[in-house]
Amino acid sequence: MPRYTAPIRDLKFIFHDLLALHSYADVPGFEEATPDLIDAIIEEAGKFTGDVLAPLNKVGDEQGCRRLPDGSVVTPDGFRDAYQQFVDNGWPLLNKPVEAGGQGLPYVLGMATSEMTSSANMAFGMYPGLTSGAYEALMNGGSDAQKALYGPKMASGQWAGTMNLTEPQCGTDLGLIKTKAVPQPDGSYKITGQKIWISGGEQDLTENIIHLVLARIDGAPEGIKGISLFVVPKFILSEDGQLGPRNSLSCGGLEEKMGIHGNATCVMNYDGATGWLVGEANKGMRTMFVMMNEARLGVGMQGLAQAEVAYQNAVDFARDRLQSRALTGPAAPDKPADPIIVHPDVRRMLMDQKAFIEGARAFAYWTALCGDLQHKAPDEKDRARAADYMALMTPVIKAFLTDRGYKMTNEALQVHGGSGFTREWGMEQFVRDCRITLIYEGTNGIQALDLVGRKLAANGGRAVFTFFAELDDFIGLHQDDPDLQIFVEALKTTKVQLETGTSWLMRNGMTDFNNAAAASFDYLQLFGLTAMTYMWALMAKVSLEKKGLDPFYDDKLVTGRYFVDRIAPEAAMHLAKLQTGAAPIMALAEDRF
Amino acid sequence: MPRYTAPIRDLKFIFHDLLALHSYADVPGFEEATPDLIDAIIEEAGKFTGDVLAPLNKVGDEQGCRRLPDGSVVTPDGFRDAYQQFVDNGWPLLNKPVEAGGQGLPYVLGMATSEMTSSANMAFGMYPGLTSGAYEALMNGGSDAQKALYGPKMASGQWAGTMNLTEPQCGTDLGLIKTKAVPQPDGSYKITGQKIWISGGEQDLTENIIHLVLARIDGAPEGIKGISLFVVPKFILSEDGQLGPRNSLSCGGLEEKMGIHGNATCVMNYDGATGWLVGEANKGMRTMFVMMNEARLGVGMQGLAQAEVAYQNAVDFARDRLQSRALTGPAAPDKPADPIIVHPDVRRMLMDQKAFIEGARAFAYWTALCGDLQHKAPDEKDRARAADYMALMTPVIKAFLTDRGYKMTNEALQVHGGSGFTREWGMEQFVRDCRITLIYEGTNGIQALDLVGRKLAANGGRAVFTFFAELDDFIGLHQDDPDLQIFVEALKTTKVQLETGTSWLMRNGMTDFNNAAAASFDYLQLFGLTAMTYMWALMAKVSLEKKGLDPFYDDKLVTGRYFVDRIAPEAAMHLAKLQTGAAPIMALAEDRF
Repeated sequence: MPRYTAPIRDLKFIFHDLLALHSYADVPGFEEATPDLIDAIIEEAGKFTGDVLAPLNKVGDEQGCRRLPDGSVVTPDGFRDAYQQFVDNGWPLLNKPVEAGGQGLPYVLGMATSEMTSSANMAFGMYPGLTSGAYEALMNGGSDAQKALYGPKMASGQWAGTMNLTEPQCGTDLGLIKTKAVPQPDGSYKITGQKIWISGGEQDLTENIIHLVLARIDGAPEGIKGISLFVVPKFILSEDGQLGPRNSLSCGGLEEKMGIHGNATCVMNYDGATGWLVGEANKGMRTMFVMMNEARLGVGMQGLAQAEVAYQNAVDFARDRLQSRALTGPAAPDKPADPIIVHPDVRRMLMDQKAFIEGARAFAYWTALCGDLQHKAPDEKDRARAADYMALMTPVIKAFLTDRGYKMTNEALQVHGGSGFTREWGMEQFVRDCRITLIYEGTNGIQALDLVGRKLAANGGRAVFTFFAELDDFIGLHQDDPDLQIFVEALKTTKVQLETGTSWLMRNGMTDFNNAAAASFDYLQLFGLTAMTYMWALMAKVSLEKKGLDPFYDDKLVTGRYFVDRIAPEAAMHLAKLQTGAAPIMALAEDRF
Repeated sequence: MPRYTAPIRDLKFIFHDLLALHSYADVPGFEEATPDLIDAIIEEAGKFTGDVLAPLNKVGDEQGCRRLPDGSVVTPDGFRDAYQQFVDNGWPLLNKPVEAGGQGLPYVLGMATSEMTSSANMAFGMYPGLTSGAYEALMNGGSDAQKALYGPKMASGQWAGTMNLTEPQCGTDLGLIKTKAVPQPDGSYKITGQKIWISGGEQDLTENIIHLVLARIDGAPEGIKGISLFVVPKFILSEDGQLGPRNSLSCGGLEEKMGIHGNATCVMNYDGATGWLVGEANKGMRTMFVMMNEARLGVGMQGLAQAEVAYQNAVDFARDRLQSRALTGPAAPDKPADPIIVHPDVRRMLMDQKAFIEGARAFAYWTALCGDLQHKAPDEKDRARAADYMALMTPVIKAFLTDRGYKMTNEALQVHGGSGFTREWGMEQFVRDCRITLIYEGTNGIQALDLVGRKLAANGGRAVFTFFAELDDFIGLHQDDPDLQIFVEALKTTKVQLETGTSWLMRNGMTDFNNAAAASFDYLQLFGLTAMTYMWALMAKVSLEKKGLDPFYDDKLVTGRYFVDRIAPEAAMHLAKLQTGAAPIMALAEDRF
């Protein structure tokens, strides 16, 4: 069975060396987050995820969820108990506000527990993950009464939350939603319709499930401007928050999927279910986007998390498996063959994974810190800059980390040879589970469109120009440092490529929107590579400062060099591709495929 | 349920326009292969695979194979009957020699039925596929008596064949084989040992199974030089070829795998089973390599075949699924949204697939033709050249077509969005089935080592220099043709890149073998891209000649342009990567991963 060991050392590096969280003591929530507390939390989370959640990962895959004839859903053996421990230990409350009973710790710290949970057991992690997203949406869009009624128990994980967007005829294009909401004299609505692919739509982990449902109020405008958001609990609450009657909603079936079998993907039928409007009528998408943006960062993290756990097991296998001799002479002459880690092509796959994972981790947490600063930084300029970055980077993190994360889980499987293809070794589960991350919360193609169509253009391009200026500052400050030279050079190169791509888009994407859409995938990849190059430059800088204290810092520099030599050069290819524009892509007539 | 429609039009293009098989009438076997016969065969094969095999693909995945307590194995519902039809229709005999009861048609034509079978039902296709490989090995290495005893019924498919190489402690490194062969007074051997991952090791399709087994004769030299090949039938034959007693071998279990569930992957236990030496003692690897080389081309074809069937379904989905409006204005104003094929990012994914599939198909059949010519061309120089190409291109076809084929099945899944992740749509099965092609018959890393370590160097590099000269000839002949200019330019560029990579390898790979191994993956990719660019140039040339006769030729030129603009540029990246050499790959100490 595969193992998972939380990457504690690397997380400490991220929090203490790279992001230097201790330097944000003037930001609310951070004053409590001392290095000692951070270390204690991530070590504890590492233990819990490794000891309790990881052993259930394979069970979850093999058993999947079962729907009983009464419409109830049974999660895999052990999930119920593990979830109870998860709640009892207070993990969901870590970064919830103090006024909701939470610990009020930084969002960026909560990302570490999300990463570990996803690595250990992605299907399990989705239950609390979606609850957290639904909680945020309610806190953002709900009335004070709704916040008081649902907030505390969702914050603690005692109740779960779900997102109900997709219907059979609409996934990406939510303007096509047909689910109806009919106003009732008491101010509530009767919700009727079918939602599909609802993660955790029904389960046996929590005593209540708070569904957030997109629907169309009778007579609302056509399309996306007529969509409203409703809160529709499985059990209707009395005014004092006690569980009341069962609502008219049910799980009509479970989806059979490629992976994440431990998570119940439900068809949800709303048969005149009682719901209440969240926020304003016809403005449901606005609140839903709050939820989705946070969820997207979480999905990017899932891609990274699957790559991490797959990598750990690939390293173990490469050390244990004896096969052929090193080309440079026997490395383990006392054994019948050498461990395959001596072979350069195996080492190439492992380094690809390591360089991706560590760079992606830096990028994800660096962005997550913006998630804190956008709300809490004392200086308004810092808040604005963090909000800009958060908006700009979210689609990049979602798509880049899942595209590459999936490739890396596949590389980890490949290191295993034939064993990788068998169920027994568990590698193929990582690949199957990871595959969904390229699709849900907006396919990666949609992320790329969001980046070029919305995020780049926002406020006259302020976010991306701020980013370029930050890169220039780094280059200017460090270009004479011989130890950093390879990193600065790589950053100069990718930055110029990204600027070239950006101005190509500005010149050609405005006159023909198809050019922007055609270039979007490669632009996002180019953006991700540039951001990762910057992360590696930042990591190299702090590692050089600490070199000698711990061989860990030498490893960082070696891994960074690998990134610069062997991964950053991919940026040029993406620039070349994006510059072809729409012509070659759209030239073949629709009926000639 | 996904559909499969054999790509008849493209195969006709390959056989008649690109390869011009009618021009080889002086080659034995080709004189019968008139264009009409070829068309009739591929149309008939298209019907059979589409109507009979494709509908069983999902059944095979869902049911898998079952091992009964007596060690017998039951294949999925319908497989037995379909196999009987396959044999009754004479498909296995298509390109078997006339003296074995076959039709004696070209090998390259047989590739078309392999492609279709693999697209329609890869798990099913493996049963006859491996039989064909085992047949070839016996015909190459066996005695006349063995050929007479086993040949005809293996040729027709009445009996099946298997390859028994892998043991728990050895996959790639067959020198570690422990299975023992003890000589008996009657000239036979008693074979004892365990083999794993034996495709079709046991099944209910054929009345006998002829196992080819690698084992070590008592007292043989250590390592790979002490491995012999044995033929070990499930039922021992009387001298006149009648089925006799059951041999002491059995299926000890079935492997649970990521995909190809319809194929029985067996643990095979040989308990003093009676076997006969094939060829010389201790030279078993030589014969096995004959079998593997052919099998490797077949595996490359499987990668292409999965990409083809996945692509067809992605096109259907992209035409049917209505979601959002085209950025340039509604394309289907009468419908609630436009079909997603109007969106450039969807079109990009479809064009990626189409340009890969058609280029890969040309490359695979062009190489398969060498498989005929190496044995049958009247001119000795032509035979030598074809043999050189066959040896050189086989690892490239195997690894390049499966690496990319897998990526393309993933793109086809991605076109489906959430539906792609569900079992219902069948796309995820294509991905799961395809995944093994990167691993079996030698992992793709082993193919790359075979290319740089063995195939490049053979005969002083004669094969690769012949290939370069052929590219130069094409460039020289066509560089002033304005219609071909983009293709000639792309070919010039990739050819120079491949030459640069080749001389880098010659300079750096000899002094440090780790450099060669470190560069091997990227070198193989660069090689594949160059060969595909050449294929597209050849296809463009014949398409220009026939332009106007059929819009098919215009489509070819459009697709070729896409390849040149958007895929060929990947070659530069692989060159940059291979030139880093082993240093960044091997810099991190083994214990620091």
